[in-house]
Amino acid sequence: MNRVIITNLNKHINKGVLIQGWVCRIRKLKSITFLILRDRSGLVQCVLDNALIDTNNLRLESVISISGKVTESKNKLNPFEVIVDNIEMINAVLEELPIEINKDKLDINLDTMLNNRVLSLRHEKKSSIFKIQNLIAQGFREFLIKNDFTEIFTPKIVAEGAEGGTEMFQLKYFENKAYLAQSPQFYKQMMVGSGFERVFEVGAVYRAEEHNTNRHLNEYISMDLEIGFIENEEELMNLEEEILKYILEKILNQGKKYLDILDISLPTIEKNIPRIKFKDAIEILRKKYNKTDLEGDLNPEGEKLICKYVKEELGCEFVFLTHYPRRKRPMYTMPLGNEETHSFDLLFRGLEITTGGKRIHDYDMLIENIKYKGLIPENYKNYTDTFKYGMPPHGGLAIGLERLTCQFLNIKNVREACAFPRDRTRLTP
Amino acid sequence: MNRVIITNLNKHINKGVLIQGWVCRIRKLKSITFLILRDRSGLVQCVLDNALIDTNNLRLESVISISGKVTESKNKLNPFEVIVDNIEMINAVLEELPIEINKDKLDINLDTMLNNRVLSLRHEKKSSIFKIQNLIAQGFREFLIKNDFTEIFTPKIVAEGAEGGTEMFQLKYFENKAYLAQSPQFYKQMMVGSGFERVFEVGAVYRAEEHNTNRHLNEYISMDLEIGFIENEEELMNLEEEILKYILEKILNQGKKYLDILDISLPTIEKNIPRIKFKDAIEILRKKYNKTDLEGDLNPEGEKLICKYVKEELGCEFVFLTHYPRRKRPMYTMPLGNEETHSFDLLFRGLEITTGGKRIHDYDMLIENIKYKGLIPENYKNYTDTFKYGMPPHGGLAIGLERLTCQFLNIKNVREACAFPRDRTRLTP
Repeated sequence: MNRVIITNLNKHINKGVLIQGWVCRIRKLKSITFLILRDRSGLVQCVLDNALIDTNNLRLESVISISGKVTESKNKLNPFEVIVDNIEMINAVLEELPIEINKDKLDINLDTMLNNRVLSLRHEKKSSIFKIQNLIAQGFREFLIKNDFTEIFTPKIVAEGAEGGTEMFQLKYFENKAYLAQSPQFYKQMMVGSGFERVFEVGAVYRAEEHNTNRHLNEYISMDLEIGFIENEEELMNLEEEILKYILEKILNQGKKYLDILDISLPTIEKNIPRIKFKDAIEILRKKYNKTDLEGDLNPEGEKLICKYVKEELGCEFVFLTHYPRRKRPMYTMPLGNEETHSFDLLFRGLEITTGGKRIHDYDMLIENIKYKGLIPENYKNYTDTFKYGMPPHGGLAIGLERLTCQFLNIKNVREACAFPRDRTRLTP
Repeated sequence: MNRVIITNLNKHINKGVLIQGWVCRIRKLKSITFLILRDRSGLVQCVLDNALIDTNNLRLESVISISGKVTESKNKLNPFEVIVDNIEMINAVLEELPIEINKDKLDINLDTMLNNRVLSLRHEKKSSIFKIQNLIAQGFREFLIKNDFTEIFTPKIVAEGAEGGTEMFQLKYFENKAYLAQSPQFYKQMMVGSGFERVFEVGAVYRAEEHNTNRHLNEYISMDLEIGFIENEEELMNLEEEILKYILEKILNQGKKYLDILDISLPTIEKNIPRIKFKDAIEILRKKYNKTDLEGDLNPEGEKLICKYVKEELGCEFVFLTHYPRRKRPMYTMPLGNEETHSFDLLFRGLEITTGGKRIHDYDMLIENIKYKGLIPENYKNYTDTFKYGMPPHGGLAIGLERLTCQFLNIKNVREACAFPRDRTRLTP
């Protein structure tokens, strides 16, 4: 008999089925036992005669196989239940579970949860996070594929960094020194210039940052895009609005079950996301919140306050900050006058979830800007040579997948939105 | 005026349009010039009065903007052409092109092609490879999403290797030593055990292999899947047949243009792919081709010959080799008796494109098999602990994206199916 998954039991009412999964709960009465079975699709109550198996040996989370008859049920878990004919152990739990996972709420600290990831993910409030994350990544890809973007796969082992600074992981590549890519920046620009014009990548990026905060991962998934023949960065912000709307719509259509489990209402984007110049944001923070320690960049408190301001004054949970200072942006960013750039961040509920902007496409300007940033053009020759042979005007952006997941789902620590996070001290599991 | 892409010119017959792209060819006559413009969608002939611009300054591959009127045309490039009103330089080519890319066939060696990747990819015979590759990766994901798989993103910085051996890139992870993952093997198994049951990942894997062959990349894209509650590896082979059929169908439907450019007929999978036991394959090679040097594994010549045999005798370009020897398979492979395993390879046109099999799900058997392979169970504790707490029977497979692309498209060197390959000596661009 073929296995039926729990969500499909409604197609087998009053018929025999084979179901398989994990023992989620057991309640033993005098002559019968109520056993809740869990598979990837849901939970169902199974009613078995105590003579069928020694339920003392039936530990929670053991993997079992049950054949029985589907009947309608009044229990609130599932409108059906299974009257068990036969029950078999497939793989028994060998030791006491290190965490209790069969409660409504998983009441353990973050480290314990991550140390026991395989068990904690069996809790529906944890697995639902990744079901939503799936819809985000797939929504991003779907929207871009519909809009004529080409997916790219670019190397993560690189000879030089794109974002400057020293925060790169170094490795030995046979006789050479190499690094893990901080971003696919150079490569996505090169792929625009190679004629694809519109490219995207959903892939890992690496930041060897020393600090250990609730917003940082040392390895995370970046949803990157780059697009040629744009006039200005406004087009990029418009594009990101469309992408976010598409993703939100997809989650509402396909992820309602998981939103309900997490008790989450998604944000809405009804009109355009407000766009505020960086220097005006600094001014607002100074005047309204007496924040005088900001210059060049917002700190986490500044990000929270400007989002609070925009929500209260403009009724939106998102805000684009634009015209970032030139000295704070990487060398590939298109300058605007001497001080500013054609770049932006998207903040959402107090956190930066996107950095983007127009890039330099003129070779001489690029070389000059590399020098302006105190870097040596010769080190970037593989990248800069591209600009000698017909690079169109272009720009792009990157969205952090785990951060966006967190902000949609009101998760406080980005590690919760990563199945196996890598941080300053965590390298396992 | 908004830019129109070349493929959409048919919607603007006898109207004014703005088109932008690269100068692909120029033919100057006495009073007019024929200029072929290329954008991401195709090529179009533009007819301009020589008075409009000094065409001597119009180098091939410069990025230009043209406004003009669309008219029907008899040239075979495109049923339309553009009569130019105005032409503007957007970004001029600064130096002589290092390679000639505007011929029907790109006549350069592999290294030159890869060193000048941004230019060589502008040739439609090169870009088409990646358009087909897109359809392969997207087909793989689409099929699995339709079949209730969850996409996973697993860490590539890991504390231990899954495949054994010493072929791992090592890096310094703050105070610790870490490695780049050879495969997502442990993590995909753990995600099956965490209740998702069916998972997949399309992501980079790393092999620090010293040899430099036309079949190997040191960083490549692995299309991985893992599935719980299977009975045997036959189910995995059936699943792979369905996946390959889906991908081939998708390419035929959406990639015909690129197949025509590459002059390729795709293989067909009309009936089941033949399944031959590994030891029987060795016997066939010995008897029929007098290959006596094979034991434990096929060498590249053996792979080619067994594919030749299957094609001639059984009329199929694919063949599953099954029951691989236990001593040649990684420690997580389910043994079959003392000598064999529940595992398989898929060979296609003389090359291995998939390795897969049933995995061990019993904790004690796993520990024993780790020892059998001469490894130390304690080193794998993060992985093996998973098996104490209810791991279902499961198995999976991995398809190398670049290799599959090559074999579909009759490409001889896997580097051609990777935009920016990493091999023994190549770390740039």
